[in-house]
Amino acid sequence: MNRNVVFTFFLFCFVTICRGSGTDIALDAKATLLHRIDSLNLLIYTCLLTLTVLTIWVFKHRRVSWLHETGLAVIYGLIVGAIIRYAGSTNHITHINVNPEPGTTYNLSVPPDMLRFHFPASLPITPGDSPIANKTYAYSFRGEIVNVEQNEIDLKATFDPEIFFNIILPPIIFHAGYCLKRKYFFRNLGAILTFAMVGTALSALVIGALMYGCVQLMPASLASSFTFLDTLYFGALISPTDPLTVLAIFSQLKVDVNLYAMIFGESVLNDAVALVLSGAIQNYETRYSHDGGFEISGFLGAIGDFIGIFSLSLLVGALMGCLTALMTKFTHVRDWPLLESALFVLMSYAAFLIAEVCELTGVVAVLFCGICQAHYTYNNLSSDSRNRTKQLFELLNFLAENFIFTYIGVSMFTFPKHHFDPWFIIAGFITSMLGRAVNIYPLSFLLNLGRKPPIPVNFQHMLFFSGLRGAMSFALAIRNTVSEARQAMLTTTSLIVIATVVLQGGAATHALDYLRIPTGEGSNEESEALPYRDVRSPPDIGLGLRNLDAQGPFYQIHS
Amino acid sequence: MNRNVVFTFFLFCFVTICRGSGTDIALDAKATLLHRIDSLNLLIYTCLLTLTVLTIWVFKHRRVSWLHETGLAVIYGLIVGAIIRYAGSTNHITHINVNPEPGTTYNLSVPPDMLRFHFPASLPITPGDSPIANKTYAYSFRGEIVNVEQNEIDLKATFDPEIFFNIILPPIIFHAGYCLKRKYFFRNLGAILTFAMVGTALSALVIGALMYGCVQLMPASLASSFTFLDTLYFGALISPTDPLTVLAIFSQLKVDVNLYAMIFGESVLNDAVALVLSGAIQNYETRYSHDGGFEISGFLGAIGDFIGIFSLSLLVGALMGCLTALMTKFTHVRDWPLLESALFVLMSYAAFLIAEVCELTGVVAVLFCGICQAHYTYNNLSSDSRNRTKQLFELLNFLAENFIFTYIGVSMFTFPKHHFDPWFIIAGFITSMLGRAVNIYPLSFLLNLGRKPPIPVNFQHMLFFSGLRGAMSFALAIRNTVSEARQAMLTTTSLIVIATVVLQGGAATHALDYLRIPTGEGSNEESEALPYRDVRSPPDIGLGLRNLDAQGPFYQIHS
Repeated sequence: MNRNVVFTFFLFCFVTICRGSGTDIALDAKATLLHRIDSLNLLIYTCLLTLTVLTIWVFKHRRVSWLHETGLAVIYGLIVGAIIRYAGSTNHITHINVNPEPGTTYNLSVPPDMLRFHFPASLPITPGDSPIANKTYAYSFRGEIVNVEQNEIDLKATFDPEIFFNIILPPIIFHAGYCLKRKYFFRNLGAILTFAMVGTALSALVIGALMYGCVQLMPASLASSFTFLDTLYFGALISPTDPLTVLAIFSQLKVDVNLYAMIFGESVLNDAVALVLSGAIQNYETRYSHDGGFEISGFLGAIGDFIGIFSLSLLVGALMGCLTALMTKFTHVRDWPLLESALFVLMSYAAFLIAEVCELTGVVAVLFCGICQAHYTYNNLSSDSRNRTKQLFELLNFLAENFIFTYIGVSMFTFPKHHFDPWFIIAGFITSMLGRAVNIYPLSFLLNLGRKPPIPVNFQHMLFFSGLRGAMSFALAIRNTVSEARQAMLTTTSLIVIATVVLQGGAATHALDYLRIPTGEGSNEESEALPYRDVRSPPDIGLGLRNLDAQGPFYQIHS
Repeated sequence: MNRNVVFTFFLFCFVTICRGSGTDIALDAKATLLHRIDSLNLLIYTCLLTLTVLTIWVFKHRRVSWLHETGLAVIYGLIVGAIIRYAGSTNHITHINVNPEPGTTYNLSVPPDMLRFHFPASLPITPGDSPIANKTYAYSFRGEIVNVEQNEIDLKATFDPEIFFNIILPPIIFHAGYCLKRKYFFRNLGAILTFAMVGTALSALVIGALMYGCVQLMPASLASSFTFLDTLYFGALISPTDPLTVLAIFSQLKVDVNLYAMIFGESVLNDAVALVLSGAIQNYETRYSHDGGFEISGFLGAIGDFIGIFSLSLLVGALMGCLTALMTKFTHVRDWPLLESALFVLMSYAAFLIAEVCELTGVVAVLFCGICQAHYTYNNLSSDSRNRTKQLFELLNFLAENFIFTYIGVSMFTFPKHHFDPWFIIAGFITSMLGRAVNIYPLSFLLNLGRKPPIPVNFQHMLFFSGLRGAMSFALAIRNTVSEARQAMLTTTSLIVIATVVLQGGAATHALDYLRIPTGEGSNEESEALPYRDVRSPPDIGLGLRNLDAQGPFYQIHS
């Protein structure tokens, strides 16, 4: 099937939904074909997710714990990606360079929304009786082309990276915020904030600096294409952690709740920090410097950007959360649980939209909205709405998370903008590990000066070990692949994510053993001393959390 | 804000997600601006829905029953649509006509996926220092332009109609299928199938023929632009009913379950029939006839189309439903309710995608998938998954339904392709009423020949009265607005939907009174004779159905 099609997708819909247009556009044969191929792509991912669900059931059934569902999703994705890549069909984008019709006037400072392309009968090889001759087609605005030299390329089962920030990440991040169990979160708030805010910034800086050094030493021609800002951006995107796999095992083995709280709380917040940080770096790049140079005013501006956007996004999210809490408290909407749940969902979504309209970061707003919803609104909800909202976001989170990991696997083979540079990949692995170490050990030392009880050394090792990279790193890496440097970052990030999720995730049980971190059943006697032993086996409240290993004591709803 | 932007939307995302492209496309200023404006549009709808939820709470709280939430959504939509329309800002699509670059070769029989438009510095009025001069922009394929003469037009808060068929309708239709209570559905299956299959086809034919006659008599120039196929298409799209409001009142007043079953069952199935029927008419139009003439072979082909697509879609949906039932029966995935729910959602979505990939009708597949899921899979699910899937689709249905009615209101003012023709509108109202009468009375007479107990006359009147038009009619009408005839249909359909939902819905209680149809509390003594009296007050099973008036005895899950 040598058809010229673009592979894009998720939620099928996006597919047929481009910008609405005022011109009368008919669903012609080509649009129908594209729709079918888009559906096929979505179907591939749906089947992959179904397969993951069934396999993970078998694994849970047989008590296999060394492979988490996200690891499995990555592996299935890699297999299917390879099949799609090496299967016979080639699907590449076709394009034509066009000029305005003679005599066109246009006096706006932005490009037009639409081009109307009348297919002439006179193009070479296109005979006058070709089905497209003398027809007019509408083309809608996409964006600026940076690298004009680039030619047609294959593109299979991939889609617009912005989908991550607008569809996939929001439910994941909201769910994380909504599931934060405040008791342990606030008990460890100092450590969590230190690791997430200071630690992530420090880690980004260290990785950026080290990578810049490495790049300078590299034999490859790549060296010249990297600026310090590029490597700093890499540092920011590779710093957030995503220790899903480790947390699932913690929960299964009933590991210390404070350790759980620190790792989970840090991973929730450092996503937000990294997202805003990378945005600030990018702003700095476009605003102050096109040659990668350094300016004090720009640097201060970037820091201002970071603080401003972070705190305003936080404010928007928190305000919307509190507004929902007030609405649910002072009305009796709880008598109609469906209305209440709808209100909850609409208000949370509005937080995201308001932040995006104000040029803030919707994902960060949604995180803090989720935290406030859990902290305030949750207590006002009817028990029906509690269950419903919990279950809804749990399911959305599950699907979104597994989708993103499947996509990481598939895109390793099908995404056309990979650039494999072995030196950069090796350097990336080493520096990301060093960055994690710089995040944990010095800050733990400082924290232990004032913290009671201090963080024991084996906990520190476990914190270091829990530095898996995941969804946020990948989404940030794939967002921008306009230069070779950025493509090398994407490849390195994908590999780091795959390696940490599969290998580090698989070794988590052994790490717990090796570090002699007490686990649930075995530590019954010493856990008596802990005041919060009683919550280690949370009561099942009808949410199905009992059987789902991904949930831990820190991860369930307030009971 | 005289910006040249396209207003499109829903789920925000669609917005930034156009077809993925292989070229390096940067998020430039214009793309960011479009993203913000899209977010703003989504925010408008989110706020409208929030307002609807809050108002409907007040109404329920004060026991106002003459206005259903969908009617309220329409009214709010109309108000906000008018504000948007008459507010100062104009936002129109800008376009440029383009030609291929000299020397371009292109030898495919389909148009290219993308145009690359290099902005010259020499266009009149665009100075060389304009921010867009000498930049290259990507434009992606949208579809064929039918009416090339059409110029730029305003377009506010509207979006691609295909979104209805790919995002909004599937959860509504799936939910309807999933909520069918089979006992009463199958008890009245004969009547339901007769009304839904024969009745809808008959109604479409009668409305089509009558409208064609009316159009011929019309003084307007419109007459010549209507073919018989056009009016038949109108008949097909205006035939499906959507008696949400009436059913809500039935449920509240505990009206006879058989009457409820007939009205609900018919409305579920006639959506599917009308969708496939209108597709067959459209296929006939493109395949056999461009002049609206009539050919026997084409007519038979269209009937074959209708039967083939309907039954194959049914088959796909039913097979996926049964497959899910087998999976949940023979595995113990029910031990992990989250996995089970995910499997359920993925399989149901796969039914939609498979049908779309095979050029069948996804919405119909999803309906029968929903019915099979309720019939077979539901009994295998863990109680946790039962609640979760029910609640999930209930919420999705609520949001989608209210969104579509809000949009009907807003688009009345903002959609640019309305064509107000008073004669056509009046004829539309009268014929759609006659069509409903032709559906109900003769078929009831025939059914009563063999049915025991027969359908009483006052029930027949109520069936006639329940012929509200809704989401499916609107979606079919807005799907195609390429000709003036189609635009007049859209306007008429929108007005019929608004009028029936608000007025007929509001008068439903009085109609019940007037027709002396026994309602719950008052009919306790005679209902003793009915064997199914006991289900009239369904036990609340923790789904919050008790308080939600939209649910009736026929509309809740198998207990």
